[in-house]
Amino acid sequence: MRTIRVFAPATIANVGPGFDVFGLALHEPGDEVVASVSDQPGVHIRTITGDGGKLPLDPTKNVAAVAAAHYLKHIHAQSGVELTVHKHMPLGSGLGSSAASSVAAVVAANELFGSPLRRQNLLPFTMEGERIACGAAHADNVAPSLLGGFVLIRSYNPLDVIQIPVPEFLHCTVVHPHIEVRTEDARKILRRELTLADSITQWGNTAGLIAGLMQQDAQIISRSLTDVIIEPQRSLLIPGFDAVKKAALDAGALGSSISGSGPSIFALSDSIQTAKACGEAMRNAFNSIGLESDVVVSKVNKFGPRILPVEE
Amino acid sequence: MRTIRVFAPATIANVGPGFDVFGLALHEPGDEVVASVSDQPGVHIRTITGDGGKLPLDPTKNVAAVAAAHYLKHIHAQSGVELTVHKHMPLGSGLGSSAASSVAAVVAANELFGSPLRRQNLLPFTMEGERIACGAAHADNVAPSLLGGFVLIRSYNPLDVIQIPVPEFLHCTVVHPHIEVRTEDARKILRRELTLADSITQWGNTAGLIAGLMQQDAQIISRSLTDVIIEPQRSLLIPGFDAVKKAALDAGALGSSISGSGPSIFALSDSIQTAKACGEAMRNAFNSIGLESDVVVSKVNKFGPRILPVEE
Repeated sequence: MRTIRVFAPATIANVGPGFDVFGLALHEPGDEVVASVSDQPGVHIRTITGDGGKLPLDPTKNVAAVAAAHYLKHIHAQSGVELTVHKHMPLGSGLGSSAASSVAAVVAANELFGSPLRRQNLLPFTMEGERIACGAAHADNVAPSLLGGFVLIRSYNPLDVIQIPVPEFLHCTVVHPHIEVRTEDARKILRRELTLADSITQWGNTAGLIAGLMQQDAQIISRSLTDVIIEPQRSLLIPGFDAVKKAALDAGALGSSISGSGPSIFALSDSIQTAKACGEAMRNAFNSIGLESDVVVSKVNKFGPRILPVEE
Repeated sequence: MRTIRVFAPATIANVGPGFDVFGLALHEPGDEVVASVSDQPGVHIRTITGDGGKLPLDPTKNVAAVAAAHYLKHIHAQSGVELTVHKHMPLGSGLGSSAASSVAAVVAANELFGSPLRRQNLLPFTMEGERIACGAAHADNVAPSLLGGFVLIRSYNPLDVIQIPVPEFLHCTVVHPHIEVRTEDARKILRRELTLADSITQWGNTAGLIAGLMQQDAQIISRSLTDVIIEPQRSLLIPGFDAVKKAALDAGALGSSISGSGPSIFALSDSIQTAKACGEAMRNAFNSIGLESDVVVSKVNKFGPRILPVEE
């Protein structure tokens, strides 16, 4: 019986000003899904590891199973799929944990059936996983996890995903404090109305960030990495946010903000040395208020999911 | 006595989604200013042509004079300047008429004094002309008129202007119906609050337009040339807007929207043939509701102001 093992990477959604429209992929962490063909129709979850028993095995409630099931239905699969999910990142971290599992599951299923669809055409199925995870079929984690690189989701209706080249010097630091913020809660607190003035600032910055990335201009990237709308609201849910962000900027980061809906905080830097220094400074800032945290330093992952050798 | 004659180009501000942040320069029309050193201190207007007597000669009320006066003060000029302003475009047209006059005046003054400042450092003085013209020191006309090309004004405080390369295939059509919309009025009708959902759509499009221009991708440009916030409000001030925009799109335009605060309507196209066809179709659409109009077809003007030979 054929078995496929796929790694899909963690992601930083929003990336400063681009709430709901920007995302980028990291090299680590990421989730792994092992998929094999099953005689039973539909999708079944055999095991989940690394979740501390928190995730549902019920395939109608598990994001990876839901995403895979939408894929199987689309290709009119004659057989079912059995999934084993290995979580390698914390739930509710702001690193796109559910997205990575959905992407790994759908890519694995597609491989299992001989890759009838191209990667970018898998996006709608992975988004169905997000619908289960956070109540809305967002693409700002699944798109970069699936496609790699820095991604602009210009529109949802119709879906329009644009890949943006990033400079080689760009390094990401993500610091994950050991607390949980539920994506749904982080969305609920957002005001549904905003001022035209703030909105103009924000769309100047989303345009500026794309220009900075494509012109490989660290200073334009730095000046554009400002979120005047979402960060001031959501940062209230993250203890120590201001101090941690300041620590990153003082350590030389181009900019720093909330990763996805938090509580992870990211920084972008123009070298690996600065990115590491940011990680150290940011962890210290969390430590000083009694919060343990994990640090990841990574370039932008241009490749997205990887097919891994299957362990016997 | 030394005399300098400068042409500064008309501009399209906003360019679809980029209200207050995007602008581009045209090759024509444009205003010309003739400047010469004067024994009298300060700035004096000798003549204005082409304005039908509408513009003030009072140097505290004339935008070109105000802009030039701010420049003279900055360089601590020992002598004054006398200006002749030749208007070659209609007032209140949405083509950046006041901006072109301000830019021509400041560039001419700078030339007159031996160019102590570089072009981009002239921007703050030209913005003072806009403050007189429309009540706020906007840069989305003066910046592209002064610098040429397509310009992103990422921020006003501090001022941050980013030049964006545009593809060679890009052609602009601007159709100016013979009615006037005052910029102040067009600003007054705008709602000061908007929904987060519309705002997200808009910042996806500003980011998308920059990506499309820099990737030289006509289809991304086309999909991004959408303004869900300002156009629905301001288009109500322009008779026939929907029909004229539809005519442009039916003729093959990548997109079409209001030029600045209107009433001119622009279209962007991927060839000069399409740009001309758009102009014809748009003029016909205005004609069909009894409105005369002028059509300009132009590539994006990469050069900005030009020093012209002085006629004896």
